[in-house]
Amino acid sequence: METRTLIYDCEETRLTGYFADSAPHTQKPAILVAHEAFGMNDHIRARTRRLAELGYAAFALDMYGVEGLSLSEAVSHHIALMSAPGLMHARASAALRLLMTLPGVDPKRMAAIGFCQGAITALELARGGAPLRCAVGFHPGLKRPAGSLDQPIEAKVLMMIGGQDPDVPAEDRAAFAAEMEGKRVDWQLHLFGGVGHAYTNPDSDRLDIPATATIPPPTSGRG
Amino acid sequence: METRTLIYDCEETRLTGYFADSAPHTQKPAILVAHEAFGMNDHIRARTRRLAELGYAAFALDMYGVEGLSLSEAVSHHIALMSAPGLMHARASAALRLLMTLPGVDPKRMAAIGFCQGAITALELARGGAPLRCAVGFHPGLKRPAGSLDQPIEAKVLMMIGGQDPDVPAEDRAAFAAEMEGKRVDWQLHLFGGVGHAYTNPDSDRLDIPATATIPPPTSGRG
Repeated sequence: METRTLIYDCEETRLTGYFADSAPHTQKPAILVAHEAFGMNDHIRARTRRLAELGYAAFALDMYGVEGLSLSEAVSHHIALMSAPGLMHARASAALRLLMTLPGVDPKRMAAIGFCQGAITALELARGGAPLRCAVGFHPGLKRPAGSLDQPIEAKVLMMIGGQDPDVPAEDRAAFAAEMEGKRVDWQLHLFGGVGHAYTNPDSDRLDIPATATIPPPTSGRG
Repeated sequence: METRTLIYDCEETRLTGYFADSAPHTQKPAILVAHEAFGMNDHIRARTRRLAELGYAAFALDMYGVEGLSLSEAVSHHIALMSAPGLMHARASAALRLLMTLPGVDPKRMAAIGFCQGAITALELARGGAPLRCAVGFHPGLKRPAGSLDQPIEAKVLMMIGGQDPDVPAEDRAAFAAEMEGKRVDWQLHLFGGVGHAYTNPDSDRLDIPATATIPPPTSGRG
């Protein structure tokens, strides 16, 4: 597998993404991978390599320009990204444009996936009319960032949410469903019972904060 | 495939179910199939045979004791079933007990599925503590019938709902999610965008009533 660190710019900010591809000389579908509020880290790079192992070109974008953040620093960056009108979309679009030009990438077969804040990122690309086949979110927040766009959505949209996720109240799910229906998107939302917020991240329990801790498995069931 | 009409009673009411099994001499998991508000009909019998083709013993229960209902008659029966305390659970339990004793059925591997009103029926069995591996609902209503039980739920629960289903407002989905979480059930809810109520029933469009008509497919997407 080929992996590369790719430096790119969005306006004044230098960003550092991570690209993985198992077959660089073959044209293939590509997945943009959007990180959690924690920013770029080894966890996201490992996810990106897993997608490359599955046969996709995969590119972990960088929304902050820095990594190795403490929790409070990550929260500050997250708030800045959600508050500055259009910033999330601009940074994600810069990464998508880069990915579409890379060797081995078929620019007609693009997807964006994301985790937590990254799911909002993937959705923002879709809301901006990006030429994506699909936008998929794992434990998304469903709040919209400042300046969120409302272009026609080409992507299929799938959001997968823990039924005990304290970050996603039922009213946010309802608002999301209404938005998708109003825009006639081909969308799905899956709710998983007994599951908290960041269920894809094995570090969640270690962090021990309610918003990211996973919930113990339910005691129910024979199956 | 062996198919049989099975007559059974629930209190004073004679009920007529439909059983299908591709391998009557082999012990196998069994699925109780709960019909829509329209009652027992050829559509449900065909679904039941399809499950038998997949290798399950399948039994379409009868909640009304009559079939061939007009729409207004079906609505009356539906209301009666939802309004009489405990009636839905009693009739479904009678069918489940019968199914568990049939040759070829492994009573330790039982499931209940249902469509529309039938999904409420499958849920009521689960809420009554029935020994089910899972309870699955296609385009469920999520209103609870009179006298709905609150036993510990052993079954895994999956509900699959059209995002444009006029019968299932967001507050019903939220109440269902809260109930499942409160009971620590192993559950999921899947919402499908651009989909109306009775999306599994090809007769829905012919009926041309808003509550059952399917919605034209969305125009979005490249995929």
